Amino acid sequence: MSEMHLVHMFFHSPITHTALSWASEEDGHLAGMGDYGYWQDIARTLERGCFDAAFFADTPAASDQYKGGPETPLKYGVVWPTHDPMPLAAVMTAATKHLGVGVTLSITGNSPYLAYRRLSTLDYLSGGRIGWNVVTGHMQAEHKAVGQQLVPHAERYDAADEFMEVCYKLWDSFGEGALPMDKAAGILADPDKIEKVRHEGKYFRCEAVSPTLPSPQGRPVIFQAGSSGRGMEFAVKHAEAIFAIQPHLKAMTAFRERFDAAATKAGRDPIGILFGLQYVLGSTEEEAHRRLEALRERVPLDAGLSRLSAPLGIDCSTLDPDQPLEEVPTQASQGMAQALSQIGSDTGKKITVREAAIQMGLSVGLPQVIGSPEQVADEIERHWRESGAFGFNLSAPTKPGMIEEFVDHVVPILQDRGLVRRDYSGNTLRDNLGF
Amino acid sequence: MSEMHLVHMFFHSPITHTALSWASEEDGHLAGMGDYGYWQDIARTLERGCFDAAFFADTPAASDQYKGGPETPLKYGVVWPTHDPMPLAAVMTAATKHLGVGVTLSITGNSPYLAYRRLSTLDYLSGGRIGWNVVTGHMQAEHKAVGQQLVPHAERYDAADEFMEVCYKLWDSFGEGALPMDKAAGILADPDKIEKVRHEGKYFRCEAVSPTLPSPQGRPVIFQAGSSGRGMEFAVKHAEAIFAIQPHLKAMTAFRERFDAAATKAGRDPIGILFGLQYVLGSTEEEAHRRLEALRERVPLDAGLSRLSAPLGIDCSTLDPDQPLEEVPTQASQGMAQALSQIGSDTGKKITVREAAIQMGLSVGLPQVIGSPEQVADEIERHWRESGAFGFNLSAPTKPGMIEEFVDHVVPILQDRGLVRRDYSGNTLRDNLGF
Repeated sequence: MSEMHLVHMFFHSPITHTALSWASEEDGHLAGMGDYGYWQDIARTLERGCFDAAFFADTPAASDQYKGGPETPLKYGVVWPTHDPMPLAAVMTAATKHLGVGVTLSITGNSPYLAYRRLSTLDYLSGGRIGWNVVTGHMQAEHKAVGQQLVPHAERYDAADEFMEVCYKLWDSFGEGALPMDKAAGILADPDKIEKVRHEGKYFRCEAVSPTLPSPQGRPVIFQAGSSGRGMEFAVKHAEAIFAIQPHLKAMTAFRERFDAAATKAGRDPIGILFGLQYVLGSTEEEAHRRLEALRERVPLDAGLSRLSAPLGIDCSTLDPDQPLEEVPTQASQGMAQALSQIGSDTGKKITVREAAIQMGLSVGLPQVIGSPEQVADEIERHWRESGAFGFNLSAPTKPGMIEEFVDHVVPILQDRGLVRRDYSGNTLRDNLGF
Repeated sequence: MSEMHLVHMFFHSPITHTALSWASEEDGHLAGMGDYGYWQDIARTLERGCFDAAFFADTPAASDQYKGGPETPLKYGVVWPTHDPMPLAAVMTAATKHLGVGVTLSITGNSPYLAYRRLSTLDYLSGGRIGWNVVTGHMQAEHKAVGQQLVPHAERYDAADEFMEVCYKLWDSFGEGALPMDKAAGILADPDKIEKVRHEGKYFRCEAVSPTLPSPQGRPVIFQAGSSGRGMEFAVKHAEAIFAIQPHLKAMTAFRERFDAAATKAGRDPIGILFGLQYVLGSTEEEAHRRLEALRERVPLDAGLSRLSAPLGIDCSTLDPDQPLEEVPTQASQGMAQALSQIGSDTGKKITVREAAIQMGLSVGLPQVIGSPEQVADEIERHWRESGAFGFNLSAPTKPGMIEEFVDHVVPILQDRGLVRRDYSGNTLRDNLGF
């Protein structure tokens, strides 16, 4: 039987997905986010639970789409501040032996050469345990921060294709025997076996040799989250694993089937999909629901509407909160908008902007599994079996306690059922993912 | 009596300044550079020696000025590979409590907003122990790697001025009381007290709020190495400490006097100067010289000429090795060229291209202090007293053993003389530097 792959999701920010979770007495994340030891403890906890990786989402700039400015994200700490996740990839792989770290790096404002250098340095230092979640930058605020214009969705992916092309050329530039590292002869490398990359494209230029040595896994594992037409085309072309938010189990299954078909059409084997899933644990079902309600009560409508504005690419303060979400036009991430319009709708019920906003404030569109460890394990198993998922990108509403509860109480159940491994089989992230 | 400040210099590369040092049996750096634990041990050693900081120089791309390509740097590992130093700033500050880390980040190919985010994230995570060595990128290869044109020296500094301006605006954007972080009220920040930065300049545009929280020291300590006219103007405007390579004691003194005058003219107090100095230690004078000769014998002329080509900005293979260095025209780093032409020349002797190349292969123009711990301590004290230096940016030809020897045998002598502190007085890098 194949294995369920577990990844745990974070932002380098006071919250992951639950607005105002930083204000919960059981949350230590706001103080912890500025403390290396906090992140290293989380890394060790995840490694104890045989997770493949920690995964850092990233939105490099505060959204300004709600009420035309960043005030609401700032006021409530809704994905602001948003610190660079790359240093955490370093300290978390330094504190562990097997755990991988997936980092989101947007092409916006970055040159392929320097992005390649950053990622490959981390991959080399960690002994091949880095994943790169390639994103194109769908938010206006990110573009304004680096002095660029936001270009249409399809063109962003054209640029991303070319960005990847430069990186591949650099990753593929080492021939066999390129690195004798011969101390006696005083020869480090054979320059004839290292290709000089010369790229002159529509969006990028690069003329260089690789500044970094190849890591034990050769290159970081490529993750991607594109779920709309052009995004899916990009994902099928580049991704080794997909991260996807789908609003419920039926949508996960449909998404997986659509993706498998796209992969087959492109001549590839099916690509493993990690679905986003938020767990809310308690020692009993009642306690879990009490925790959830305490979190829900803390979410201001304003914070939820602000959170909803970024993926939709519009100012949700201009909307009637009681209009159906699916009637809202959007120019931003199309997969996200579609997913949001269906939250909870496997019953066919349409949700309103208000309902979507509060749900966005709680889980940002991630379906939730709620209950005792046994119940959460059951739900995770059911979602895995029925959707055909490769695994899950899990999110905890409060941290670090609930992560420890998951590793101590849910993972052993999944292990007893033979769904999650008890040991790491390889040394690199790509090994652990079974590629 | 004031204190001597000690910083230790590295590249994230198989060598620091001594070509082929990676091939020495007593060097562990080539294997170590890919190992977090190696760097963390070095950090702990430096902290044991009460160093202010580790300092990472950086040349992001292999030089291609020698024989028109990067072959020689690749073959001998002369500042190639050149890995990103930023992850080391994270793991080295994570492994220590007081040690600072200075990182070089070039403005070439970077946006001010994302550079600010990277540096400020590290500064926040480390509790205010980051320094930023601002460089403009003087090498053609670096520009070609990111698809840009190398612009003239003065214009690079104009762009750097503007780059800094954007960073200052972001660092200065937090008013008093901007961050209540009030859990009961659910208010993280007061948006009215956080300035929205709007910058539209000749070289850069940025419209954003700071993505990062202020660190305990507010902003990273600014280091700078500009030593020629426009570079010195930039340094006097921005730098809190200067890193300078001068070929001998007299030149250090003259440089310090010139810099003090420039600072005074600009209405500033004198700016502390850290002079580059390479130490070659032995338990006896004889052993130190044997070690030096073993290193010198390993330097191929080709590697030295290649190393000389980057700072001069010309292909040294086209030169007559026996012509005087000072007759060589250069369009690159003017301070470096001038310094190189005077290596060893406090006696008035002019050196040839060949002599400069071998010396570049050994120490890249850093004056050397060679001998037993007592002798090295004497020389360091003499250079410090006579030059009026703030301190030294030290380089070890082999690592990590010679760093440990320095900390165990030279630092205690300097401490006994009251020149180097026995404990850290503050918590941030700026505190430790006494600013």
